[in-house]
Amino acid sequence: MLNQTTKEKINRIVFGTDTKAGRRFDIVLLWLILFSVLAVVAESMPELGMQFPDTFFYIDWVFTIVFSIEYLVRIYAAEKRKKYVFSYWGVIDFLSIIPAYISIFVAGYHYLLVIRVLRLLRIFRILKLIRFTREGQVLLTALRLSMYKISVFIAFIFTFIVLVGTLMYVIEAGNPGFSTIPASIYWGIVTVTTVGFGDIVPYTRLGQMVASAMMLAGYAIIAVPTGIVTAELTKKAYEKNTKQCEKCDQEVKADDCYCSNCGHKIESKV
Amino acid sequence: MLNQTTKEKINRIVFGTDTKAGRRFDIVLLWLILFSVLAVVAESMPELGMQFPDTFFYIDWVFTIVFSIEYLVRIYAAEKRKKYVFSYWGVIDFLSIIPAYISIFVAGYHYLLVIRVLRLLRIFRILKLIRFTREGQVLLTALRLSMYKISVFIAFIFTFIVLVGTLMYVIEAGNPGFSTIPASIYWGIVTVTTVGFGDIVPYTRLGQMVASAMMLAGYAIIAVPTGIVTAELTKKAYEKNTKQCEKCDQEVKADDCYCSNCGHKIESKV
Amino acid sequence: MLNQTTKEKINRIVFGTDTKAGRRFDIVLLWLILFSVLAVVAESMPELGMQFPDTFFYIDWVFTIVFSIEYLVRIYAAEKRKKYVFSYWGVIDFLSIIPAYISIFVAGYHYLLVIRVLRLLRIFRILKLIRFTREGQVLLTALRLSMYKISVFIAFIFTFIVLVGTLMYVIEAGNPGFSTIPASIYWGIVTVTTVGFGDIVPYTRLGQMVASAMMLAGYAIIAVPTGIVTAELTKKAYEKNTKQCEKCDQEVKADDCYCSNCGHKIESKV
Amino acid sequence: MLNQTTKEKINRIVFGTDTKAGRRFDIVLLWLILFSVLAVVAESMPELGMQFPDTFFYIDWVFTIVFSIEYLVRIYAAEKRKKYVFSYWGVIDFLSIIPAYISIFVAGYHYLLVIRVLRLLRIFRILKLIRFTREGQVLLTALRLSMYKISVFIAFIFTFIVLVGTLMYVIEAGNPGFSTIPASIYWGIVTVTTVGFGDIVPYTRLGQMVASAMMLAGYAIIAVPTGIVTAELTKKAYEKNTKQCEKCDQEVKADDCYCSNCGHKIESKV
Repeated sequence: MLNQTTKEKINRIVFGTDTKAGRRFDIVLLWLILFSVLAVVAESMPELGMQFPDTFFYIDWVFTIVFSIEYLVRIYAAEKRKKYVFSYWGVIDFLSIIPAYISIFVAGYHYLLVIRVLRLLRIFRILKLIRFTREGQVLLTALRLSMYKISVFIAFIFTFIVLVGTLMYVIEAGNPGFSTIPASIYWGIVTVTTVGFGDIVPYTRLGQMVASAMMLAGYAIIAVPTGIVTAELTKKAYEKNTKQCEKCDQEVKADDCYCSNCGHKIESKV
Repeated sequence: MLNQTTKEKINRIVFGTDTKAGRRFDIVLLWLILFSVLAVVAESMPELGMQFPDTFFYIDWVFTIVFSIEYLVRIYAAEKRKKYVFSYWGVIDFLSIIPAYISIFVAGYHYLLVIRVLRLLRIFRILKLIRFTREGQVLLTALRLSMYKISVFIAFIFTFIVLVGTLMYVIEAGNPGFSTIPASIYWGIVTVTTVGFGDIVPYTRLGQMVASAMMLAGYAIIAVPTGIVTAELTKKAYEKNTKQCEKCDQEVKADDCYCSNCGHKIESKV
Repeated sequence: MLNQTTKEKINRIVFGTDTKAGRRFDIVLLWLILFSVLAVVAESMPELGMQFPDTFFYIDWVFTIVFSIEYLVRIYAAEKRKKYVFSYWGVIDFLSIIPAYISIFVAGYHYLLVIRVLRLLRIFRILKLIRFTREGQVLLTALRLSMYKISVFIAFIFTFIVLVGTLMYVIEAGNPGFSTIPASIYWGIVTVTTVGFGDIVPYTRLGQMVASAMMLAGYAIIAVPTGIVTAELTKKAYEKNTKQCEKCDQEVKADDCYCSNCGHKIESKV
Repeated sequence: MLNQTTKEKINRIVFGTDTKAGRRFDIVLLWLILFSVLAVVAESMPELGMQFPDTFFYIDWVFTIVFSIEYLVRIYAAEKRKKYVFSYWGVIDFLSIIPAYISIFVAGYHYLLVIRVLRLLRIFRILKLIRFTREGQVLLTALRLSMYKISVFIAFIFTFIVLVGTLMYVIEAGNPGFSTIPASIYWGIVTVTTVGFGDIVPYTRLGQMVASAMMLAGYAIIAVPTGIVTAELTKKAYEKNTKQCEKCDQEVKADDCYCSNCGHKIESKV
């Protein structure tokens, strides 16, 4: 019985935010994640990573061990262990420690690139941060809800870019930046998204005219995804001011006292 | 009678999506289109197109023959053949096969550019993809509805750019990028749409001041088309919550039970 | 009496769009304006303007005379002549012909630049086009209504850019693109509006960090003017569905039959 | 008693805008601020600052003394002196004069950079301008209200950029612009915000593909913060059409005459 209680206590600390210990655990973890990401970034700078390779090696292992302990504790304390391990957060927690362990088995200097990529995979620890911001999760939900519409929009834009890119490939033949259709499509993406690096630019007059039409079109159609998301969010804000009648499931305004459909007195607040 | 039934069966498969065979037909076609577009793109890359010209030649004819069969089957199975042939999709289907056939009649190496352009016209097959996404068609409708307003907006922006472009042509006289008014207008479009390639930039102080004012104005007025589309979409979402009174055609809220105009009891749901 | 009728007839043709002759007059004028603007643009191109200077000289005078006749006819036919002359359109019509006449009095080759600028002022004829698009006038109104808010917003952005520009001037001392505060402010405007020419870029690490913060801030705050205009337009669309009670000036919904304030029966439609 | 009245009179002039003297005081101050900022900007230009160093030295001290007098008068006339001194405006007023006084104590040419920075701090006088625009304060409030959501959004974008930046650091190894992770992140910010300077661009095909995906994603997600602010502002505009019942604090529509909750007759107008 005692063991059960200990597990429950730990569960409230590592998963919950309603106890003082739980909040402290979160804050300590937050800083650990930030520092571990900062270590990965700092290691990539020659004046740090090349000067003190050993220091970074040890720092990294300290973080790996700490996050491994966190992972094991979470598995131990999870209500449903299997559910946690295969949940979004379980996978992220696992991925943030596994590269370090794999790098042990990849022996010596033969697979330097593999090790390098493995070490950089630690940067994904930054995803652990999202757990701490409720707003972040709301934003993720908002993005996921508009995701399909946005995907269709991107597919549309991409179709448009493929067509104009091929056109530019024909018009700008001889211009090194437009030597293949994929290169033209790359230029099209850089242009329509209004990034405009300027490493590839049209030289012919006709090319500049087509590019101008493309830019003006792109400038105008950026309004469409914006409008879609806004309308979605406005609708959502509007809908939050309604509740359902308990008797006839009619949707009524949140501050109505009687159902406008059946006259049932509504007790509940939203 | 049997023939008629066969035609109806084929019609359901090639035009409909409500049968298993119809959905399978769509998926096969979807992949065929994607691969045929990919083949056009890949052919433009020297390391592929120059190495295996014959392969691409044969691949292309396979796709052309498959799409020709699809076109003929669609004509055969269409309810109203004439209507299909001159519909948006009929024209797209036709345009996706005709370049290959024309290229036979354009003999030899005399008209290389014509052949090259003809071959690239095959990229328009990508437009066949829109048929498969209902959301794509919704988006097209949304764009078409805002098209007129957006056109007027683009015309406005263009007028603004012509004026500022001419001004910059006077101010930046001697700067190669502003040697003619069309060149200045091209720069103006690149700048106002915030693409900013950087191949043409103002050198004089006055030119930089005018460019600054232009950029700030452009930055602020991008809000206008966005606002127009959003207001349009929000209005649409709002209107979906209304229905018409069956007696007096008065527009009432979707959850109203009695018409606010004539007192008629409304039975229908939206 | 006859004279009066003739004036009224001409008035309907040159100012109105409700008669066949009036619409024809508009269409002819529209093409004349387009061609006259095109002539100005074409003249700036060396391969045309340098080759056929006389042709352009004569073309320009033809347009000037035609627009002069139009101007005189409009003055003659205007209901209130003084009002027309000092109206927006009267001023535009005057400005589109006066540069040509001034250029006669500016003698010889001594004032080449003045003549050049005068000739380019003819480009302002493009503003005559706005008369033909009702939507254009709606857009102008929408812009004018949001103008004050947008101006305040631009002033805000500008204040922000002045501060960051001065900061960059200190940080990037020695970088030629940041040699003076005005140069730094120019760079700031190019960057915050996301144009990003790339002719001036920060070299120091601290400069790149400040620039990064500036870009992210600019990326996020572009949402504000967009939101302002959209909210304005949405409100407008919402308000169009209301009308005022004739008795107590209460604002009621457009489809209400009785004032919700005083019970007065409302006859008028919106 | 007389002294008290004098203080009140001065208070109305320096803090209020409801008297003629108060408005005049504001306008004089507005121009003084603009000219003092202009002086700082002009001094940074070699053809002015290097030519007439003494002139700028004296001009600056004149402004410093004028603003010092303004500061002392404000302290004297403030209703609650302590509150003013530590208010936003009190701090700005103090910061706009203190650099000049500190520069006296920093002796000679030993601390040239310090003096230079101190002198440039005077640019912060521009913040005094915000006091004069009520709309500016509204905008500040609007920004502050959306600040938290926008911060979360920027944090999200930043996380996304850190991940893609690290990926590009691996892919574009050898490309000088991607030599460290911070450099890659800088490139990522320049790209996702669509600034696109073009001083750092991907060279490898894989790098260009990842960059393309990043740009398209960034292009689509700019819709999210725009939508958030718009929904916020639309909600606010909607809420302005409501008032509270005086009896039960129920929120009712601005044009309702009876509370929909308790039937209380509502007298007040919004």
